[in-house]
Amino acid sequence: MNAGRIKLGMLGGGKGAFIGIAHRIAAYMGERYHLIGGAFDVNYELGLEFAKDLELDESRVYPDVEALIENENKLPEEDRMEVVSIVTPNFLHFGMAKRLLESGFHVVCEKPMTMTANEAEILEGLVNSTGKKLCLTHTYTGYPMVRQMKTMIAAGEIGEIQKVDVQYYQGWINPVVHDKELRKTVWRLDPAKSGISSCIGDIGLHGFNLVEYTTGIEINEVLSDLNHLYDDNPLDVDGTVLLRMEGGIKGVLRASQIATGEENNLTIKVYGRKGAFKWGQENPNELTLLKQDEPFQVYKPGHPYNAQFTADSTKMAPGHPEGIFDAMGNLYRGFAKAVRGEKLEEGDYPNVHDGVRGMHFIEKVVKSNKEGNTWVSIL
Amino acid sequence: MNAGRIKLGMLGGGKGAFIGIAHRIAAYMGERYHLIGGAFDVNYELGLEFAKDLELDESRVYPDVEALIENENKLPEEDRMEVVSIVTPNFLHFGMAKRLLESGFHVVCEKPMTMTANEAEILEGLVNSTGKKLCLTHTYTGYPMVRQMKTMIAAGEIGEIQKVDVQYYQGWINPVVHDKELRKTVWRLDPAKSGISSCIGDIGLHGFNLVEYTTGIEINEVLSDLNHLYDDNPLDVDGTVLLRMEGGIKGVLRASQIATGEENNLTIKVYGRKGAFKWGQENPNELTLLKQDEPFQVYKPGHPYNAQFTADSTKMAPGHPEGIFDAMGNLYRGFAKAVRGEKLEEGDYPNVHDGVRGMHFIEKVVKSNKEGNTWVSIL
Amino acid sequence: MNAGRIKLGMLGGGKGAFIGIAHRIAAYMGERYHLIGGAFDVNYELGLEFAKDLELDESRVYPDVEALIENENKLPEEDRMEVVSIVTPNFLHFGMAKRLLESGFHVVCEKPMTMTANEAEILEGLVNSTGKKLCLTHTYTGYPMVRQMKTMIAAGEIGEIQKVDVQYYQGWINPVVHDKELRKTVWRLDPAKSGISSCIGDIGLHGFNLVEYTTGIEINEVLSDLNHLYDDNPLDVDGTVLLRMEGGIKGVLRASQIATGEENNLTIKVYGRKGAFKWGQENPNELTLLKQDEPFQVYKPGHPYNAQFTADSTKMAPGHPEGIFDAMGNLYRGFAKAVRGEKLEEGDYPNVHDGVRGMHFIEKVVKSNKEGNTWVSIL
Amino acid sequence: MNAGRIKLGMLGGGKGAFIGIAHRIAAYMGERYHLIGGAFDVNYELGLEFAKDLELDESRVYPDVEALIENENKLPEEDRMEVVSIVTPNFLHFGMAKRLLESGFHVVCEKPMTMTANEAEILEGLVNSTGKKLCLTHTYTGYPMVRQMKTMIAAGEIGEIQKVDVQYYQGWINPVVHDKELRKTVWRLDPAKSGISSCIGDIGLHGFNLVEYTTGIEINEVLSDLNHLYDDNPLDVDGTVLLRMEGGIKGVLRASQIATGEENNLTIKVYGRKGAFKWGQENPNELTLLKQDEPFQVYKPGHPYNAQFTADSTKMAPGHPEGIFDAMGNLYRGFAKAVRGEKLEEGDYPNVHDGVRGMHFIEKVVKSNKEGNTWVSIL
Repeated sequence: MNAGRIKLGMLGGGKGAFIGIAHRIAAYMGERYHLIGGAFDVNYELGLEFAKDLELDESRVYPDVEALIENENKLPEEDRMEVVSIVTPNFLHFGMAKRLLESGFHVVCEKPMTMTANEAEILEGLVNSTGKKLCLTHTYTGYPMVRQMKTMIAAGEIGEIQKVDVQYYQGWINPVVHDKELRKTVWRLDPAKSGISSCIGDIGLHGFNLVEYTTGIEINEVLSDLNHLYDDNPLDVDGTVLLRMEGGIKGVLRASQIATGEENNLTIKVYGRKGAFKWGQENPNELTLLKQDEPFQVYKPGHPYNAQFTADSTKMAPGHPEGIFDAMGNLYRGFAKAVRGEKLEEGDYPNVHDGVRGMHFIEKVVKSNKEGNTWVSIL
Repeated sequence: MNAGRIKLGMLGGGKGAFIGIAHRIAAYMGERYHLIGGAFDVNYELGLEFAKDLELDESRVYPDVEALIENENKLPEEDRMEVVSIVTPNFLHFGMAKRLLESGFHVVCEKPMTMTANEAEILEGLVNSTGKKLCLTHTYTGYPMVRQMKTMIAAGEIGEIQKVDVQYYQGWINPVVHDKELRKTVWRLDPAKSGISSCIGDIGLHGFNLVEYTTGIEINEVLSDLNHLYDDNPLDVDGTVLLRMEGGIKGVLRASQIATGEENNLTIKVYGRKGAFKWGQENPNELTLLKQDEPFQVYKPGHPYNAQFTADSTKMAPGHPEGIFDAMGNLYRGFAKAVRGEKLEEGDYPNVHDGVRGMHFIEKVVKSNKEGNTWVSIL
Repeated sequence: MNAGRIKLGMLGGGKGAFIGIAHRIAAYMGERYHLIGGAFDVNYELGLEFAKDLELDESRVYPDVEALIENENKLPEEDRMEVVSIVTPNFLHFGMAKRLLESGFHVVCEKPMTMTANEAEILEGLVNSTGKKLCLTHTYTGYPMVRQMKTMIAAGEIGEIQKVDVQYYQGWINPVVHDKELRKTVWRLDPAKSGISSCIGDIGLHGFNLVEYTTGIEINEVLSDLNHLYDDNPLDVDGTVLLRMEGGIKGVLRASQIATGEENNLTIKVYGRKGAFKWGQENPNELTLLKQDEPFQVYKPGHPYNAQFTADSTKMAPGHPEGIFDAMGNLYRGFAKAVRGEKLEEGDYPNVHDGVRGMHFIEKVVKSNKEGNTWVSIL
Repeated sequence: MNAGRIKLGMLGGGKGAFIGIAHRIAAYMGERYHLIGGAFDVNYELGLEFAKDLELDESRVYPDVEALIENENKLPEEDRMEVVSIVTPNFLHFGMAKRLLESGFHVVCEKPMTMTANEAEILEGLVNSTGKKLCLTHTYTGYPMVRQMKTMIAAGEIGEIQKVDVQYYQGWINPVVHDKELRKTVWRLDPAKSGISSCIGDIGLHGFNLVEYTTGIEINEVLSDLNHLYDDNPLDVDGTVLLRMEGGIKGVLRASQIATGEENNLTIKVYGRKGAFKWGQENPNELTLLKQDEPFQVYKPGHPYNAQFTADSTKMAPGHPEGIFDAMGNLYRGFAKAVRGEKLEEGDYPNVHDGVRGMHFIEKVVKSNKEGNTWVSIL
């Protein structure tokens, strides 16, 4: 039986890949994983070289997921990888995750989890049937003040929710999208690699997840207006989505990759009868609480007034800012608890069901837009 | 022929009325008007008492607009009121403005200009036929940094516009709307006094106007989702409106009176191919300019780098903040130039045509919502 | 006996003078003064022309203060100017204020009140002996949130004060001071016109006043380090002053005119045993309250949680920012109450005693620096 | 000869120690160190237990620094620890660092480096004589925007520097210092453990270092005013220090542990003839550049406009905030380059000379205060 540090493998994330760095740091910082090996690059030689830089055992570097599964499963259980992180482009997630779950591995998967809702449901079925777990890296749920918001909303601090407004604005695709040739070279705008949506699939999805995560309330229906900017651009680069949530709550989700000059401007505002919360990802250590005719309050990490869940998600004393790696580290830490069968908090890590909901969201948003901006049920 | 200070009358704005204070200060601060008299209160005695406090000539205090018109027109032209400001509740605007324009007076009118688009067009016809002018107090267009944004957009600073996002969030109606009895006592929620919309009619309208003012581009179509919160609440208290502008530009307008704890959180973001502007009303002296991969820049009033129109709209040196009265003062100053036949800047004061467009906007937003959130043309 | 609007005269503030505009707007906005006339310019013809623009009665426009006094005093008491505002360069304040007080006029005076502490004491003696009042326009004391801070400190909200830190940073003199020829042309750097200090006398003084105003505690001793930048520059353009207050409280005051790029960056932080306040002039409608291990709170104007004094200093509902003119307007309003014998709030307007203390502060700061940065008593 | 990952040991930093977590994460994140063992706790058994949690080899866990040195030096060179991090309380730094340097180890040392300037100079002598290196963890120098500021100042972006203002305000000692009994239990206020200064020694020191780091200019003289609050409190909890730098530049350093409600509010402002920089630690990813009569600019990490040194200190794309661990990680990364003999950037890690200067600073600030707030030379 396994105990102690969790043996971690990785698919993708080789030399120069931002996302691989993020996952490795996230795994290191909680001191609950050992990175053992993986298939870091489609080019095996490059992957091997990269693994050498990391001083990993060469025998644990594989050309692909199948080789990894075959060889790891030959090893004694106590040596075998237990968790494998998938940090490849979108179109590879499903196949890899499916094979890993089937073959006895827990999975950490970058989002979007799959290319279709159908695939997502297959993975959910596998998680249920195999008992293996899947952590979907909706990283923003790992920020301490997001968790504080979730906890305080659940405790009734702002009363019954009556309006939600979430935004994720980037501008990075702007210099690409206006250049017809350049546009073709970007995988985000290639449906074969990116799926049926660029903007909604990549970042609108985060907004969707953040709303459901913080409020604990499901989004039932969507009406979307997407923007491709050009007729020959196959994917959306901007979109606004009207939301109807359980209990008739209305909301709006705004996402853009053509919001020139914006970086990762993800903000959420949740308005309840008694108060409201506002939070933004680029300054993640401030959570604003509004109440009618009271001075507004700003919560920060590290203080005894925070919930236990928030405290567990913070390593430093107040005033020394933690950042994006710490948020992802909190997901890895939560998943380690799940893998080791420890007591979990509600929301400790985003799971396969969040992935299923997310894929339905993407599909229905695209459908609403295609059908002329009409209301479509998520499920 | 008139010259020098403009003789100003006022309808409404008696004791304790915020809006009256704002208009008087706005008129005083540019030193181009003399307040002469008016009909300050539906109760003539109260209006008279109020006028005495202001040390106005009692003979120029009237019971109503008709008395004002009749008596003023008996005076020699050089003594007569030239401009009359209407600061009464919404449902009185049209009748008063109509009679004043017909009778030879210029008009300053609070927004919304009328109860219906039809009325608005009648006023526009009168302005055209009489040569008298109407200033609609879309106050936010008077802020220097809004004018700087308008000027720089017109000069091409951010290139072709590709996305617009405007928000006006308040929370003040929140404690009212949940109380069925209290709700009946508030004129904003009474269609007879407020018109067919509360939230969109009062504040969504500002968002609409600000988009057209700053971009110089018209909004052509709307798709709205309004929220009354309760079936027996006759008017919207929240709404999101998808926008289609000239040239196919997409945008979104968000307005709420149930955004608990918000004060007058009006923000606008305009994204162009080359850059973007962001501005917010509660901190009005900062205008942010974003460009891809450049440090973002913050423009402030009083500096030589600003446009002449901005400079003309600023009285102090940099770093001494001007505020809402100064914004409205800029409208009064612009209107004084119009009344005296001086050279105007584009955008010096919002006029009757802005009012016509605004009334169509309100009607079509309500229509879209009633018809099940479909696209409706503004005109 | 006088009643109703106060008849106001003005010395200085002619065409193009920022400070005159500020005083006139401040006087207009509370609707308690009528501007009657004055001596607006050293050049009588220019002053007269300016007065015509304002449509003032030519007979009330004077070549100088002596003419004003002589002629006004010939008028019936009920017609006579009651208050005269002095908005001339520094070196003229004392003589004008002295003659006005001696001759039966109340005085509004720009700061610094005089050129020396001795002159200031003479004015204080005159105020005491004549019963005429003097309002010193330390404008920043008129901001509603400064008044809120003062009131809450007095009420014990932050407990016993243990540290004070005030800053006033500007950069405007930077392009001047490095140019030996240009430097000679600026009256701020001419001791004959400006007094013994530039930076401390002009803006350090505001910091001093703001500390004493908000805390209600006197500064007893100073140790200063001033910077002239060049040996042949007769006046300081930058300085740091260590403070010792009543009860042994320590503090620091920092002022600069060479803080390149700063506008009017006046900030104050007051730390008590139980909490702390932070406020800044360039964003004057936010007052931050810190408490150990509590979310920090931000107070804004217009809310019922504010003190009555704050409410009286605010005209608009929350979220519509007032600015610098409104702050000065509050001083004029407070002084009107004093002139008419109405009930005053503590701190309604800065008075001649504040002026005396301020002049001692300037002199002792300069002395400390000259003596090699040693401690010097204010009195 | 050593190559690849650096073998790292640690002294102190056992269970529950914040600072140990920070150093370990910092070492992990650059993937250039392997943590091998150390002496984690004064109680050997606790240290061993802690090491087991980290799954370290028990044979590399030692009771103290002497045991570590003796045993490690018996190992073949290629297995031996190369760098040892000292994260114990202040009073142990010197002895440990001295023995390690003498015995062939590179050292990472928490600040303050020693208890006295004399000790610091001994360490500097050892670094020079042994060729072993010492990294002093002035963590704030690791923030990318601090490095951007340093680089741009060196490149002349703001011209000749004419004023410096640095602040480090905390409030944490406030609830301690007023309680005479509690006060005795806190090692920060015990001269035997903390040295001759609490506030200046702990946080004022960071301000000193940050000024010299960013400007590249040395501070020559200080005049200080420290505050113990109580006569029987042996150490300062607050202080202001006037600075004289090379070339006669004046500045001010403000530090406090009784700034109630402040967390780690470290800010620096550097004013030059042509422009100015402002930066604050609690929002570390924004660097403001001011220029006279230009819109102010805000630099953020991850953009191509940043210097190479800044780019090397950033792992993520723009808009995903990195934090305090990343800053410390940059120091570890820089030190790894030094240990492996790779090309260094100016300022890659703070070294023993920074430690010598810092200890002189602390001693001379205390001396100035004792002598009645007089000027004292640093050296």
